[in-house]
Amino acid sequence: MESSLLGAKQLLLCCLFLLWVLAAVAEAKTVHEQWEISYQFTHSDCVRKLAVTINGGTPGPTIRAVQGDTVVVTVKNLLMTENVAIHWHGIRQLGTPWADGTEGVTQCPILPGDTFEYRFVVDRPGTYMYHAHYGMQRSAVPIVWVGEPQSLLINGRGRYNCSAMAPDAAACNATHPECAAQVFAVVPGRTYRFRIASVTSLSALNFEIEGHEMTVVETDGHYVKPFVVKNLNIYSGETYSVLIKADQDPNRNYWLASNVVSRKPGTPTGTAVLSYYGGRSSPRAPPPTAPPAGPAWNDSAYRIGQSLATVAHPEHAHPPPPRADRTILLLNSQNKIDGRIKWAINNVSFTLPHTPYLVALKHGLLGDFDQRPPPETYNHTGYDVYGVQANPNATTSDGLYRLAFGSVVDVVLQNANMLAPNNSETHPWHLHGHDFWTLGYGVGRFDPAVHPATYNLRDPVMKNTVAVHPFGWTALRFRADNPGVWAFHCHIEAHFFMGMGVAFEEGIERVGDLPEEIRRCVSTKGGGH
Amino acid sequence: MESSLLGAKQLLLCCLFLLWVLAAVAEAKTVHEQWEISYQFTHSDCVRKLAVTINGGTPGPTIRAVQGDTVVVTVKNLLMTENVAIHWHGIRQLGTPWADGTEGVTQCPILPGDTFEYRFVVDRPGTYMYHAHYGMQRSAVPIVWVGEPQSLLINGRGRYNCSAMAPDAAACNATHPECAAQVFAVVPGRTYRFRIASVTSLSALNFEIEGHEMTVVETDGHYVKPFVVKNLNIYSGETYSVLIKADQDPNRNYWLASNVVSRKPGTPTGTAVLSYYGGRSSPRAPPPTAPPAGPAWNDSAYRIGQSLATVAHPEHAHPPPPRADRTILLLNSQNKIDGRIKWAINNVSFTLPHTPYLVALKHGLLGDFDQRPPPETYNHTGYDVYGVQANPNATTSDGLYRLAFGSVVDVVLQNANMLAPNNSETHPWHLHGHDFWTLGYGVGRFDPAVHPATYNLRDPVMKNTVAVHPFGWTALRFRADNPGVWAFHCHIEAHFFMGMGVAFEEGIERVGDLPEEIRRCVSTKGGGH
Repeated sequence: MESSLLGAKQLLLCCLFLLWVLAAVAEAKTVHEQWEISYQFTHSDCVRKLAVTINGGTPGPTIRAVQGDTVVVTVKNLLMTENVAIHWHGIRQLGTPWADGTEGVTQCPILPGDTFEYRFVVDRPGTYMYHAHYGMQRSAVPIVWVGEPQSLLINGRGRYNCSAMAPDAAACNATHPECAAQVFAVVPGRTYRFRIASVTSLSALNFEIEGHEMTVVETDGHYVKPFVVKNLNIYSGETYSVLIKADQDPNRNYWLASNVVSRKPGTPTGTAVLSYYGGRSSPRAPPPTAPPAGPAWNDSAYRIGQSLATVAHPEHAHPPPPRADRTILLLNSQNKIDGRIKWAINNVSFTLPHTPYLVALKHGLLGDFDQRPPPETYNHTGYDVYGVQANPNATTSDGLYRLAFGSVVDVVLQNANMLAPNNSETHPWHLHGHDFWTLGYGVGRFDPAVHPATYNLRDPVMKNTVAVHPFGWTALRFRADNPGVWAFHCHIEAHFFMGMGVAFEEGIERVGDLPEEIRRCVSTKGGGH
Repeated sequence: MESSLLGAKQLLLCCLFLLWVLAAVAEAKTVHEQWEISYQFTHSDCVRKLAVTINGGTPGPTIRAVQGDTVVVTVKNLLMTENVAIHWHGIRQLGTPWADGTEGVTQCPILPGDTFEYRFVVDRPGTYMYHAHYGMQRSAVPIVWVGEPQSLLINGRGRYNCSAMAPDAAACNATHPECAAQVFAVVPGRTYRFRIASVTSLSALNFEIEGHEMTVVETDGHYVKPFVVKNLNIYSGETYSVLIKADQDPNRNYWLASNVVSRKPGTPTGTAVLSYYGGRSSPRAPPPTAPPAGPAWNDSAYRIGQSLATVAHPEHAHPPPPRADRTILLLNSQNKIDGRIKWAINNVSFTLPHTPYLVALKHGLLGDFDQRPPPETYNHTGYDVYGVQANPNATTSDGLYRLAFGSVVDVVLQNANMLAPNNSETHPWHLHGHDFWTLGYGVGRFDPAVHPATYNLRDPVMKNTVAVHPFGWTALRFRADNPGVWAFHCHIEAHFFMGMGVAFEEGIERVGDLPEEIRRCVSTKGGGH
């Protein structure tokens, strides 16, 4: 699945791959990529607009590699005044924490005219994505509420409802080839693996291939115990592999459809087309039916069901450690600071330091961020997750959690009501540098005295991104065994930007010498405050 | 006159002042400004769009100071992914060449989250502007041909012709207070000084106050021998002061009008309103007449006439040195490199080095730019300025001219035909760090054996920005007595970006220690190539 530095659109990028890593079948090699980042006019959803592109296109190139290969991506920033940073989402960066591409955490941004080399080993097969990790660059919008409708793209193609918004007529060209629906042509009787990723900036999606059941077999680089679905809920930052059998009437086409769920949708269905070779239908002909509308947008139970059904494949399971050395409870709440809406974790809204943590910690620039760690928990016995917080005020901090190297850490993410009554959103949390075991999901208030006993310690799947459902909680466990500093945050880009994240340090003393290129924004005198 | 980091519009900003410097009447003081740069939605021309703003507004704040004052502007970059640099146009930065704000020449850009302090002494009264000097940030557009119509703004207010372009109807609000015409209210019988600056990205303008003659008294910080005009030609980067007498019928309003000249205009007249106190007309009432249409757009002779009329005030003249130590002839031509249109000087298209010259030269990073100087002249005896170049190919270089400290330098700017036949534009050239004497203007090919004898050595006015008229030449002289590195370029932003500029070094060994903040983009290992 390929991500990208894309326009202000909700995206579902299907069946292109950033890193389609296969189990090693030959000796390790080096995969070289030369990228130039520039603005180009595109018509991804039929509307002419500027997009940040890689080598002139969007989505960016697919990278194919096998386990053990070294990937080297030389990124040249040809933007005129804008910096960039690219994150390799799902790649653990074992031994190369400086290549994680997370501005403020692992590197300074790449300045216009500069070239930056990302070099890392892919240590595991799977489906991974890459995307910008700097400000709101992933969605290339400023921090304003862009609202709906937007366009849902599949493989970078979608269709804006021109008549609904009456934009500049000259800029909207419904027949532009760049926004023609992607067609997937299949041979009758064969089975296909679709690699699916979501890089939406906001929305949770449900993906369906009309008339074709999907067997879910992989998520975030881990095989799962196969299960069959009519449609797949997928959250920003997640990847899945599904198998479909081309066993339907070959003489008509079928919709691929992505629909917004978890928020009342104002955005039309994103579509592509499945067509059979040898059938009587033209590959580009629209299917004779209306695109699938997906499940009810507010059916949380349906989505939790999929979360619970996603467990490790018996032959590919990594059993979790039986207990944690440390448990961190993280309350997700919407707050206000100086009258502005923020997100906060345990009532602390996260801000990134100017000096990347990795540089500050490795070089002893301890004045460059708040040395007090954020709170380890919240008032979990008294908090009403269904009510509006009486005092929504929060503070900001760029402090981080320091973890004992090699220790086992449990994190429980507790969702809650937002500032508006009867409102709670799904938050897909993404952990850099690690996979975690998904031990449990629940609805309502998490009770540390009760719920840990319900954890799935038998066959939890490992993931790097997991949903925290409305009014619910999600428990996960990981081993802090990857030297570096790692972001952990809601993958809704605006939410992270508004404070919904934390950072973990572990084994900083084991990190090798940092490349000079990651610390170009750091004063040689120290001090970034 | 205030400039700004403004939207993609042609601008005429009238009667606000960046630096309204008066002759000193008291002891020198320090003028402090705290600026925050951020994106905000604005309606400067009635269309809602994002603009880069200073303290939430555009144009930015007026700075008032008197001769000898120190101006300190603390700029905090609150953009998310975009850098900034701000140039103090017309301020010579005597002793502070690192405060000139020219990205690539005198400083690294200011990164998001960073704060940069510009500190300089204003050594002379006058009317000056400030604006972004980084990529195409002054006009906040990528390097694409944006075309016309655009909007001409006066004091940040204009009126987009919504119906002509049919943009998103919801985004266009012709009654938005932010785009209401600026009203200048005057008392009958009084005389007013208007300080006028142009920060257009492209267009040459003609400015007129309906029914009121203007007496031109100042340009670029120098008093001129007063002359009366019906309307004023003004090129991007120039400033003027004019006096008008409020001596017309007070019972009606009058238009202030700016019209595009020198290119066939596709942009409507920019307007504001002059209203008399005590008259019977409401200050906001549109005048009963049509706005002045300005002179014929292609009347070059009319504009050259104004150039020739602009000479030093006899009581404020600075006589030029009688002869030059060195003469540099600069052919302005449109060229192609790899099939792309560029501008070139003596067939070399200028590029900025990644390491700012000032840093590279002061720190001996001589590998960071081309050490070969650009050509000193061109084939001036054989060049047909009225024809299309037979071979339009050019090369690029980031080399610069190194001038003997204290020497007197003549520069002759020779205009020529562009790539299309019978086409030559006006180029307003701006010199940083100096004023120059405007020795002469001519039409056709400059002849070094003939034309220097025609120079005005008696009362040439000093300026920092001067027009090179279509198919014409302009000769200027300056003393290389300001230690530093200084850009000299066409002030049409896209032209400079496309290569229409040079740089001068003088007295680098006399430059004091550089502030650390200007070299944040420079590798500590050196080498920016």
